[in-house]
Amino acid sequence: MRISQLFLPTLREVPAEAEVISHQLLLRAGFIRKAAAGVYTFLPLAWRVIRKIEQIIREEMDRQGGQEIMMPIIQPAELWQESGRWDVYGPELFRLKDRHGRDFCLGPTHEEIITALVRQEIRSYRQLPQLLYQIQNKYRDERRPRFGLLRGREFIMKDLYSFDRDEAGLEVSYQKMYEAYTRVFTRCGLKFRPVEADSGAIGGNDTHEFMVLADSGEALVVFCPDESCGYAANVERATSPVQRDTVEEETSQPLKLVDTPGMHTVEQVTAYLGLNARRIIKTILYQTEKGVVAALVRGDRDVNEVKLQKVLDVLRLELADAPTVEKITGARVGYAGPVGLQNVRLVADDEVMLLVNAVAGANRDDAHLVNVNPGRDFVPHMVADIRVVRAGDPCPKCGALLRETRGIEVGQIFKLGDKYSRALGATYLDERGQSRPMIMGCYGIGVTRTMAAAVEQNHDEDGIIWPVSIAPFHVVVIPVNHKDEQQMNLAEEIYQELQAGGVEVVLDDRAERAGVKFKDADLVGYPMRITVGNQAVQTGELELRYRATREMQLVSREQIAGHIREYIDRAVRVL
Amino acid sequence: MRISQLFLPTLREVPAEAEVISHQLLLRAGFIRKAAAGVYTFLPLAWRVIRKIEQIIREEMDRQGGQEIMMPIIQPAELWQESGRWDVYGPELFRLKDRHGRDFCLGPTHEEIITALVRQEIRSYRQLPQLLYQIQNKYRDERRPRFGLLRGREFIMKDLYSFDRDEAGLEVSYQKMYEAYTRVFTRCGLKFRPVEADSGAIGGNDTHEFMVLADSGEALVVFCPDESCGYAANVERATSPVQRDTVEEETSQPLKLVDTPGMHTVEQVTAYLGLNARRIIKTILYQTEKGVVAALVRGDRDVNEVKLQKVLDVLRLELADAPTVEKITGARVGYAGPVGLQNVRLVADDEVMLLVNAVAGANRDDAHLVNVNPGRDFVPHMVADIRVVRAGDPCPKCGALLRETRGIEVGQIFKLGDKYSRALGATYLDERGQSRPMIMGCYGIGVTRTMAAAVEQNHDEDGIIWPVSIAPFHVVVIPVNHKDEQQMNLAEEIYQELQAGGVEVVLDDRAERAGVKFKDADLVGYPMRITVGNQAVQTGELELRYRATREMQLVSREQIAGHIREYIDRAVRVL
Repeated sequence: MRISQLFLPTLREVPAEAEVISHQLLLRAGFIRKAAAGVYTFLPLAWRVIRKIEQIIREEMDRQGGQEIMMPIIQPAELWQESGRWDVYGPELFRLKDRHGRDFCLGPTHEEIITALVRQEIRSYRQLPQLLYQIQNKYRDERRPRFGLLRGREFIMKDLYSFDRDEAGLEVSYQKMYEAYTRVFTRCGLKFRPVEADSGAIGGNDTHEFMVLADSGEALVVFCPDESCGYAANVERATSPVQRDTVEEETSQPLKLVDTPGMHTVEQVTAYLGLNARRIIKTILYQTEKGVVAALVRGDRDVNEVKLQKVLDVLRLELADAPTVEKITGARVGYAGPVGLQNVRLVADDEVMLLVNAVAGANRDDAHLVNVNPGRDFVPHMVADIRVVRAGDPCPKCGALLRETRGIEVGQIFKLGDKYSRALGATYLDERGQSRPMIMGCYGIGVTRTMAAAVEQNHDEDGIIWPVSIAPFHVVVIPVNHKDEQQMNLAEEIYQELQAGGVEVVLDDRAERAGVKFKDADLVGYPMRITVGNQAVQTGELELRYRATREMQLVSREQIAGHIREYIDRAVRVL
Repeated sequence: MRISQLFLPTLREVPAEAEVISHQLLLRAGFIRKAAAGVYTFLPLAWRVIRKIEQIIREEMDRQGGQEIMMPIIQPAELWQESGRWDVYGPELFRLKDRHGRDFCLGPTHEEIITALVRQEIRSYRQLPQLLYQIQNKYRDERRPRFGLLRGREFIMKDLYSFDRDEAGLEVSYQKMYEAYTRVFTRCGLKFRPVEADSGAIGGNDTHEFMVLADSGEALVVFCPDESCGYAANVERATSPVQRDTVEEETSQPLKLVDTPGMHTVEQVTAYLGLNARRIIKTILYQTEKGVVAALVRGDRDVNEVKLQKVLDVLRLELADAPTVEKITGARVGYAGPVGLQNVRLVADDEVMLLVNAVAGANRDDAHLVNVNPGRDFVPHMVADIRVVRAGDPCPKCGALLRETRGIEVGQIFKLGDKYSRALGATYLDERGQSRPMIMGCYGIGVTRTMAAAVEQNHDEDGIIWPVSIAPFHVVVIPVNHKDEQQMNLAEEIYQELQAGGVEVVLDDRAERAGVKFKDADLVGYPMRITVGNQAVQTGELELRYRATREMQLVSREQIAGHIREYIDRAVRVL
């Protein structure tokens, strides 16, 4: 392709609307344009990247026995009513009516459609397992779409659904997808990590997220540095054993009320009383649909709301507002404590129960209790792991100290079990002629999100650095002086030769200064750049520059095509 | 792929819901399943066909300099309000609101989105022309979705938009697309015909439809048998010169009222009065938003409502109801005539004006006028070509007698001109620095419709007969006796060998009788079938059967792969 003809509108300025680097760079480098909030048009270069990611996904799904199909985007409400999700899905579901007033939604996911399809067609254990997938636009009406492609309202996903006879079959399908996902992101040239995750509202038990590692990632991940252990988890889900050895041996002392005028944060109380935050019992009140709950964690800890919601089995969990706190505790916000607290469920983190002579709010303005002893001074309704695990906590598998990293979730695999097959009646006859629900799994990859995550992970101050396997083009050829006929001819020759050799190459034939072309080349992020200047014309030596390392190399005219072909083949080869 | 694992649910019975053959066969052969009225899931075989059609389209668009992009399916109402189409598009447009109450629609077409994109990015004549396309789901809320994929509510289309400096540039883009479309349908292995067509509501002037020829086609096409002439047109648009030589030389006679009791059809009147229908002036009353119109055509002709609507420049055109006819004519339906008719616009077909001593309704019950002479007895407000052209009429280009055929419209190319670029302000600066609107064209191919049209054109009583280039698989290998180990092994060997040689092959490894497998193979429509029976095991001669011709051939074990490879290469080669 000649850049003079390519629809590639690069921008000099960073667009004001773009908060994150992938959004900025994909706009600036001419990959995407906004059509509405959270809704984008993919320009030619982006579409090439997306199609490469899709093809890698397709090959790896097929390798595991996946069969590609295409389900509708507009889904009839009836199926969602059958599964029970029509009423609970909330405002993130785009809903519409047809001309006859029938309800539809734009699919955010396809459990209902695929289960209704399979229940019609699969009768016997002989027809199982089935792995069916599609690559398609998905819809989610985010309250606040942002971060460009990372949180859009229309985005491309691959979703695969597995149907097995039993849990053992599901385990096999799940492992196949785990392997497929690992291969997909490896082939995309990304640094990533599969982590244990929370299954959230979709239901099911086991689930892993595939995280592309990037400092800008929204998700916090803890992982074990011991590679032979391999534990890694989203902090929403991560656990860590309680550290009993850090508990001081101490005799419990009598409960005492102390004045703490104006001291309503952990920091203020610890400074005022001269003690470590680990001695504090932090008491946080939440509003749920089952009433108010008080969550207790150590003063140096945070409440993990995902875990808390799960142990409470509630759909709604929000911090209680000040009037509620005042009504329940009889004190201003900042002085809540578990001792004598009425009309709430007390949920204590395991660590809290090990404290001796701790400090807690007194449920009185400007006062705390010291020498609080759990079990003696209050008895929680529930003791559970409700704290946020962090770097330095011990690994739950091997005890080594966990580390933290940030990531962008690009894929997730779920064991759904029989949730949807029971709701929609997707059964089969087993070897003995008995009807049983199929056991399902579902497996998603955010295709457009993967593109954005690749940029978040691979860029520098000049622009994007595409991994070779998903780069929109492999090489850009730049004649230094567009008025120099010899340079233009040589550049054209090399362009033609590379193209004939199957290299994806663009020729920057624009009537622009070399500096502009170099800047654009760095911004767009072609893995290789060939500069054709006077030296090239005179000596036949071409300057080849690698975007990732900024290394330059002189390669002879005769060897350039072979050299580049070899580099690409090495980078994209499938193991 | 092994059929035992393929998601390929064939049906024995013709589904009651399916009215047309493509719908019946695509359901029965396990290609599609309905998810809602006019909304389908494409199963693995259909998806393979669709992806092949898409790839052919993609290659031909790229060959002409097209660049693939992907625009959103959900489109903000603002752009449709800017173009003026939000209010006029009617109930076929699926509309929805997001959580903030903002209006969106599901794109039936993308003129607004693409024009808004291009106006932002293209500034100079140097950046033109641009040919941008996408292949994507489209939406149309049909009042009565039917005929399976031929009239669905969600369907896949390729839409390309061209942007040129001027009409001359548009002509070049238009010709490129004409060629690309010709190549696409040729490569798909279809018999088709490009025909002149009416541009309808989308606006613009020149337009051609690409018709896949099939007796079941909804569209009627007239064409010139002289191939060097090449005239072909949708009857909605077809013209034909008035045949002056068929007018009898006659002297006009005085107007006379005759009784025609109960004679209210052309057939009745011609029989009763003993004359040819060509002597009758048929008068049809229409209701329009500009009042009632009387259309006059010869008694042997039909009114072409598309032409009539165009010459009248009205949005609404419906047959007037009986009370309206009675009020206007003062007579029952069947006795309307042009003489003395008040309060309507009279539009006469050219042919009517050549009649001498014609017969027309008298605007009185049970009476007609004879010796009606246009010009003398009535003067129409407008004379125009408003008749339906038919086989036997002369070709407007060469005079040869036209023939008729039926077709399914699978593609259409339009010259839009500056309709959208003016409405949305898509301008560029020309060589002299003057701002001018870009000149646009738009070009669509119905991808899923092409699949259905291929089936309408290529089937027999046993099932589908896929053209090789778009067949879901090229070959099916059928072991006759699944309990015979030697047959199964040989079939497996051949399957492996063909697959290794790049042939798309399925092995029917099911524990079914050979008859069931043969029936399914014919139903699905694989172009070739290899039968592995006892003879094959003993002699090494394999029975190769071609689906299209039902020809059988014995090919040796050694030659089978090369033989098949050659057949495929010949069928799918790109000229």
